[in-house]
Amino acid sequence: METLNAEREVATLNGHTMTGGDGLGSYSRNSYYQRSIIDAAKLHIQRAVAENLQPENFTTLETFSIADLGCSVGPNTFFAVQNILDAVKLKYKTHEPNTKIPEFQVLFNDHSMNDFNTLFKCLPPNREYYASAVPGSFYSRLFLRASVHFVHSSYSLHWLSQVPKEVINKNSPAWNKGKIHHTREEVTKEYSMQHAVDMASFLSARADEVVPGGLVAIVIPARPNGIPHAQLPLNKKFDLFGSCLLELSNKGLINEEKVDLFNLPIYCTSPQELEAVIQQNGCFSIESMESLPIVTAPSTGFQDASMRLRAVTEELIREHFGPEILDELFNLFTNKLAEAHQDSASETIVNLFLLLKRKTYTN
Amino acid sequence: METLNAEREVATLNGHTMTGGDGLGSYSRNSYYQRSIIDAAKLHIQRAVAENLQPENFTTLETFSIADLGCSVGPNTFFAVQNILDAVKLKYKTHEPNTKIPEFQVLFNDHSMNDFNTLFKCLPPNREYYASAVPGSFYSRLFLRASVHFVHSSYSLHWLSQVPKEVINKNSPAWNKGKIHHTREEVTKEYSMQHAVDMASFLSARADEVVPGGLVAIVIPARPNGIPHAQLPLNKKFDLFGSCLLELSNKGLINEEKVDLFNLPIYCTSPQELEAVIQQNGCFSIESMESLPIVTAPSTGFQDASMRLRAVTEELIREHFGPEILDELFNLFTNKLAEAHQDSASETIVNLFLLLKRKTYTN
Repeated sequence: METLNAEREVATLNGHTMTGGDGLGSYSRNSYYQRSIIDAAKLHIQRAVAENLQPENFTTLETFSIADLGCSVGPNTFFAVQNILDAVKLKYKTHEPNTKIPEFQVLFNDHSMNDFNTLFKCLPPNREYYASAVPGSFYSRLFLRASVHFVHSSYSLHWLSQVPKEVINKNSPAWNKGKIHHTREEVTKEYSMQHAVDMASFLSARADEVVPGGLVAIVIPARPNGIPHAQLPLNKKFDLFGSCLLELSNKGLINEEKVDLFNLPIYCTSPQELEAVIQQNGCFSIESMESLPIVTAPSTGFQDASMRLRAVTEELIREHFGPEILDELFNLFTNKLAEAHQDSASETIVNLFLLLKRKTYTN
Repeated sequence: METLNAEREVATLNGHTMTGGDGLGSYSRNSYYQRSIIDAAKLHIQRAVAENLQPENFTTLETFSIADLGCSVGPNTFFAVQNILDAVKLKYKTHEPNTKIPEFQVLFNDHSMNDFNTLFKCLPPNREYYASAVPGSFYSRLFLRASVHFVHSSYSLHWLSQVPKEVINKNSPAWNKGKIHHTREEVTKEYSMQHAVDMASFLSARADEVVPGGLVAIVIPARPNGIPHAQLPLNKKFDLFGSCLLELSNKGLINEEKVDLFNLPIYCTSPQELEAVIQQNGCFSIESMESLPIVTAPSTGFQDASMRLRAVTEELIREHFGPEILDELFNLFTNKLAEAHQDSASETIVNLFLLLKRKTYTN
């Protein structure tokens, strides 16, 4: 019975969020890598708007809605949103000199357990938009039909909606005993299928919500076509982290079965896989798909590298193992990173910038 | 300098909210009076929608946005919203049998310091609407132009945007030394003017946001025309509460000057005053203005009466005097209520139901 509950717990990741507040361990203080990705995407966003937005096709020029999906608590989301807003203003001005700048609305989305109170406290006081928070999974509908002009999602779509069920099924060939990540083919296949299902849900929901001619800009960690997931440098870090959990289990601090049932719901997709699911959805044209310049997090030591993983996984760990082990686990992880000389450089992965445009309704 | 800061603090009530969370002292557990008001208004809302909503006048029948202004943390806001939603669904069904039920969006609004995290945790799981939280004062613009079909605000518009400046100005005839409420004519006049200014801002913002033909339903504590504010039974309770503050000041627990600068930003308007400001705004027709059946909070003792005032004023007190005095202040208040035999019955006031309809644009 306990196993069953534990399985359910892992299987339905109903609200995985980043660490809230603005303390030392918070996401808002440990997300400068994510910030540097946003900076790297800035020019791409500007070009996307300049080249692909056609205000004349919208039914109204008076209002413009921007959604940031997986916004977390800030401040990164504010930089991303401002960049989009500035680009849209410029486009409206150059489109026709007498066009009035529209009123802007920004829809900040994340799971309902996200710390929206902190987000609201940090809203830029001189913002040029009406802000609102929309709680829920972006793998389902979030907004009214045909109500959003620009969807942005940076570094969020590699989080699956759930750990693939087969991976925590003892009787499956994909049973991932003792591992928290996927390096074996059977396991990776399940992750890949889950990601395809999730992306299909994402696109289907956005197809309803985005106005014809509206844009969807996605930044997502990815691997080049043909490179197996097992070869990603990222895996080394996750292997180390998994070995920390096993060590705590050997010490009797956590239950071995619980370790077997813990898997990170993360998947790095490829351009090919993305293209397939976008084609299948059929409501969007791919306007752009390109790699962003490689960004390496500044090497600020092993402690920092450990803190960064903690900021994005703490809630998952707490929910699965309880809060007691958090400090010991991440101290151990810091030491293992140091022993293995795994600093920030080994975190380097390729990030993909993807621009979709909502086709005009045909039905 | 300290005085100046204190004045500024009181003068700009930039985010007075109810007590968050769901603990014993929370607003969500001490708002059954507000709940009974919502129940009392239920039939009025149903009739308002049945008789005054004309979907055929909207530019789209596909979507419908409801805003609840001053929503606090729930659960009252969920009851109110569901009632509106059910009434609108019924109207669409009876309007034309083949009309599709629109998609609904609910915009929950309160100050940015409101506990939206708790609100989101308590969202009804089977809700038939897309939920979003919109932070900010409802005395300013909150939503995009012409984007809301039904605005609801229950028991919120008696909270002024700020304490009138003259009331905390030592050199003014309206200087309200030693009092936290208004019973003297010079003081009441300032409160009345502040309420008129606030209502004008409220109506001006809503005129931009509400679609032509859209409705605004307001429930507000009020006094009958011609009855001076000084005669309201409510004042007795506030007088008692003020005397508690003076007692703590006599004991040296709080600064006397701070007590002088503390005033409750609450005003009970009259139908006449409301009509004047609505006429002046000019964008709304008054479809209905009537008294709700009188609701008396159940007499559950003096402790509960004290808790109820605490749930709505705790944040104001904390901000002005610091958190240390809260328990002692409200214990004292409980005792004073008992001494004076002031139970719930003495809280009885008249509540007004007001229904406005956005006129068709003329400019």
